Amino acid sequence: MQAEHDHAKVMKQTHIFHESYAMLTFSGRLAALRTVFPEVGIDGFLVPRSDEHLGEYVPAGAERLAWLTGFTGSAGLAIALAERAAIFVDGRYVLQVRQEVDGTLWDYRHVTDEPPADWLKEAVPAGARIGYDPLLIAEETLDRLTRAVPALTFVPLPENPIDRIWQDQPPPPAAAVSIYPAAFAGRSAEEKRAEIAGILKAAGEDAAVITDPPAINWLLNIRGADVPFAPLALGFLILRADATATLFMAPEKISDEVRLHLGNTVSLEPRAALGTALDALKGLRVRVDSQASPVWFAQRLRAAGAEVIAGPDPIALPKACKNPVEQDGARRAHGRDAIALCRYLHWLSENGKTGTETEISAAAALLAFRAEAPEFREESFPAISGAGENGAIIHYRVSPESNRRLAPNEVYLVDSGAQYEDGTTDVTRTIWTGPDRPPAALKDRFTRVLKGHIGIATLRFPQGVAGAHLDAFARAPLWQAGLDYDHGTGHGVGAYLSVHEGPVSLSRAARPIPLKSGMILSNEPGYYLPGAYGIRLENLLIVQPAAAQADGVKPFLEFETITWAPFDRALIETALLTPAERQWLDGYHAEVWRRVGPQLTGAVATWLASACAPL
Amino acid sequence: MQAEHDHAKVMKQTHIFHESYAMLTFSGRLAALRTVFPEVGIDGFLVPRSDEHLGEYVPAGAERLAWLTGFTGSAGLAIALAERAAIFVDGRYVLQVRQEVDGTLWDYRHVTDEPPADWLKEAVPAGARIGYDPLLIAEETLDRLTRAVPALTFVPLPENPIDRIWQDQPPPPAAAVSIYPAAFAGRSAEEKRAEIAGILKAAGEDAAVITDPPAINWLLNIRGADVPFAPLALGFLILRADATATLFMAPEKISDEVRLHLGNTVSLEPRAALGTALDALKGLRVRVDSQASPVWFAQRLRAAGAEVIAGPDPIALPKACKNPVEQDGARRAHGRDAIALCRYLHWLSENGKTGTETEISAAAALLAFRAEAPEFREESFPAISGAGENGAIIHYRVSPESNRRLAPNEVYLVDSGAQYEDGTTDVTRTIWTGPDRPPAALKDRFTRVLKGHIGIATLRFPQGVAGAHLDAFARAPLWQAGLDYDHGTGHGVGAYLSVHEGPVSLSRAARPIPLKSGMILSNEPGYYLPGAYGIRLENLLIVQPAAAQADGVKPFLEFETITWAPFDRALIETALLTPAERQWLDGYHAEVWRRVGPQLTGAVATWLASACAPL
Repeated sequence: MQAEHDHAKVMKQTHIFHESYAMLTFSGRLAALRTVFPEVGIDGFLVPRSDEHLGEYVPAGAERLAWLTGFTGSAGLAIALAERAAIFVDGRYVLQVRQEVDGTLWDYRHVTDEPPADWLKEAVPAGARIGYDPLLIAEETLDRLTRAVPALTFVPLPENPIDRIWQDQPPPPAAAVSIYPAAFAGRSAEEKRAEIAGILKAAGEDAAVITDPPAINWLLNIRGADVPFAPLALGFLILRADATATLFMAPEKISDEVRLHLGNTVSLEPRAALGTALDALKGLRVRVDSQASPVWFAQRLRAAGAEVIAGPDPIALPKACKNPVEQDGARRAHGRDAIALCRYLHWLSENGKTGTETEISAAAALLAFRAEAPEFREESFPAISGAGENGAIIHYRVSPESNRRLAPNEVYLVDSGAQYEDGTTDVTRTIWTGPDRPPAALKDRFTRVLKGHIGIATLRFPQGVAGAHLDAFARAPLWQAGLDYDHGTGHGVGAYLSVHEGPVSLSRAARPIPLKSGMILSNEPGYYLPGAYGIRLENLLIVQPAAAQADGVKPFLEFETITWAPFDRALIETALLTPAERQWLDGYHAEVWRRVGPQLTGAVATWLASACAPL
Repeated sequence: MQAEHDHAKVMKQTHIFHESYAMLTFSGRLAALRTVFPEVGIDGFLVPRSDEHLGEYVPAGAERLAWLTGFTGSAGLAIALAERAAIFVDGRYVLQVRQEVDGTLWDYRHVTDEPPADWLKEAVPAGARIGYDPLLIAEETLDRLTRAVPALTFVPLPENPIDRIWQDQPPPPAAAVSIYPAAFAGRSAEEKRAEIAGILKAAGEDAAVITDPPAINWLLNIRGADVPFAPLALGFLILRADATATLFMAPEKISDEVRLHLGNTVSLEPRAALGTALDALKGLRVRVDSQASPVWFAQRLRAAGAEVIAGPDPIALPKACKNPVEQDGARRAHGRDAIALCRYLHWLSENGKTGTETEISAAAALLAFRAEAPEFREESFPAISGAGENGAIIHYRVSPESNRRLAPNEVYLVDSGAQYEDGTTDVTRTIWTGPDRPPAALKDRFTRVLKGHIGIATLRFPQGVAGAHLDAFARAPLWQAGLDYDHGTGHGVGAYLSVHEGPVSLSRAARPIPLKSGMILSNEPGYYLPGAYGIRLENLLIVQPAAAQADGVKPFLEFETITWAPFDRALIETALLTPAERQWLDGYHAEVWRRVGPQLTGAVATWLASACAPL
């Protein structure tokens, strides 16, 4: 799937808003916020859409932007001044912000065309003091803003003013923490801690502050249920170069069994003890991720007299390289997912053309097939279920208002994924509802996307090559026709963690970090004709060492595809495929049949056999 | 061709050395240098292989490293201390440095495996003062060294100590400057100055200091003859945001006609006036290229009270985008080059297998064919002429000692280029001397390199894509077999300027600067089997706007190949080519025949017709 998804979260919020409406209107909320300004000595306040982990999915109590403005998108920034106020969103949310946010209270701004810095320069006089919550903004983000508007003073506030006025603000989530068993994790938490501590030691650092929940959950072999779509226990961690650690997490989330699992070298402290613990790092060299951690950490450490080393989260790269046990878990999860997908694609082949199903009912059908597996836990993101022109909206979220019937003879795109106990899936297929044959131009586009997908799937490349250097292989067949798509080709995927995971990706925009064996990435080229249809074809890949070659001396890597579901042959223009591409596709379909066929019976099996026959 | 070439320069130096030998031995030179240390208050001195333009080709008087140590390679660094001394070279020169430099005087070091900073840490005590000539090192290079050895003090010296002791040091070159006519330059110098001044103005800068001779020659529409292989007049330039400029160049190089051509808004000053002119920029914002300009400029400007803005040379990018007249010149130059190449390849087909020709005689034959054109000026670099295992040495320079006969039934690689009045060429072909058929494994490798070459030649890509994102297309066919080559795929090429030109390249190591219409780049994938043979296939390309497509909305680019000479069909394994690749190759060969055939007669024409027949 592409980028963040927040559909189910919106559902949650609806409940919160019903309570809040009774208390205060949006106009009243903005006015209440402004009354705090003189008290804390500021002329304005920044309200980003983030929590104190700067995570993709945030708990309800961190939805301050939505509470203040009504905007429920997954990214955005509001700035409230004494007399004026503006909300900044990206291209995805230009329409939505107008539906959700009162334009008499808030100016609508496009975040890149009319950036916050420009608006601030015009809206406030030099010397003005703009407050921010240092737990909700990364150091690099803050620095960019500060440099862009040097005439203003940005003031970190010890308490978020919204928390003062948001009377029914939900408390932090407190779901029970569970142990992630060795049978799935593949390595003990002790071994992982020793490895990361070794990285710190080699860099001459005394400790690292870890603010990313997936990193902490991976490191400690724990999971939780604090946010939707990713099985995360929210918390913070200080890891020392001697491999001891302190976990900052509400003790009531941790059972005795989990406490025992954490062991003696991991001490447990409540969230409230975090500041004092940072102060105690005085005089030490402490790594903090300046791109992904809230600036509060670096500020507090510097004030305490620690030496802050700006560096990447030391866990990100080791976590991205899945060990053999994690890889097996991913393969098992994808085996289960394949059965659900094939049953669903058969269901679609019968029900897509009837004109009775909708984007919502189709997504529900897929979820139902998946949920039959006992190992299924939840969706890994809200399914993108887009028929016709809705498929051309890359970050489409179906809502009761936008919900559209699947009509006969149109394109339907479905991008979805699941969290199973042993792995995370993410898959996109694009189908033709039928019953007639699709137009030639559509088949041309679909086949070019498929050629790009195969171009990535069949790559071999030496160690040292990064995703930025490979992304173009997914695009070349479209480029030949003057076409392209406006998103990256692939993102990292966690091992029963977040479906979006750093630090690598298949994208020209990414820092060129070399791909390494064990990384799981999505391969999802697409093509979008606005107002008409969207095509995206996504499988997950594991980076694997390639078999040694004749006179080759360098170690090479290749991709193992782990997603198994047929591509819609009605949309394939066979003449556009090279013999090698056709061979790959026939081999892939034969493997789908080999894996899934024996687990199906009756009409579904018959359908899959023909869907997987050679072209 | 790949990287720097210095063969003819070595020839020049031989003359200089004969004179110098009489004066002083290498041991005497090092001792003489050391006597200067106490006088100028240093404990050691850095001697890089560079001139005050940090250029690829340097005048004889700047060959201080060669004079001091005997090392004639194109890159290297010597460090002399009071008691010890070391010379640092890269992998290309590990053997050569041992042949040329006295190991009892100088320790041999590999510049990346045993970097200068590590040696300095071990060889000198903290607090030692290491002198350097600030005209011979870039600010970023110096900064890296300084940061790596913070315990030492690096001291800029107002005069290079070697210049004091090198009694017969050649004076700066003083070749006459010529006007580069509008018929070749395509734009007036006034128009170019206005464009670059506009760049400075838009950036809020008052002036830029230009130290790169190709940039200055391009800007002023002049050429010179101060260094071999590139028609450059050496000098410096201050360009102001009001489009006026001061050129620092020996007045005796400039005729009245050239003075008139420069016009009233370009004042001319001798090199000696440069320091005072920089001092006069006090209080102004002045751009200096911190990667490519000697640090002396930034130091002098800062001392004078100017604000130094570190930024790229503002001329580099506009110069790289050749205008239509420059593009036509390049096409004409390549048309001439094609006749010489085809005649030479025919000559090779007859003489390569006789066992009588050598690498030197073969290179001479090619030069003779080229020199028949009245527009020929000189080689654009010393030809790389490598038979058998010598072809596997990527930066091979044939010398009387290494010269090798072309044997029957082996691989011969020839990488060469010419400077014509209207353009610069650079081409590599790899041939099988015959008369027997080449082995299958060799044909496999050659065909993979050819497929990579075609992969680049046939690319289409949207605006915004950089060479770093495309380089892998040249490698993918080799990668499939676990093979690769250890150099970039292509470099920029000047318009009757240097054969190596920034700021873009087809290389993963390059900064991702987007390719733009008009840029000329080489396309030169290769494969090297050490001890056996080398393969490289190189044409030049011009980046061109692609024809608009059906539903395409973005502007696309593609490559126009401008080099015309057949690829050796004896080495092509036709079965490995896709139909599209075969079609490209047949079309390319047909075009070679269409362009060159009518200008040949007799046996040469007959040979070319069969060399260009469809596969």
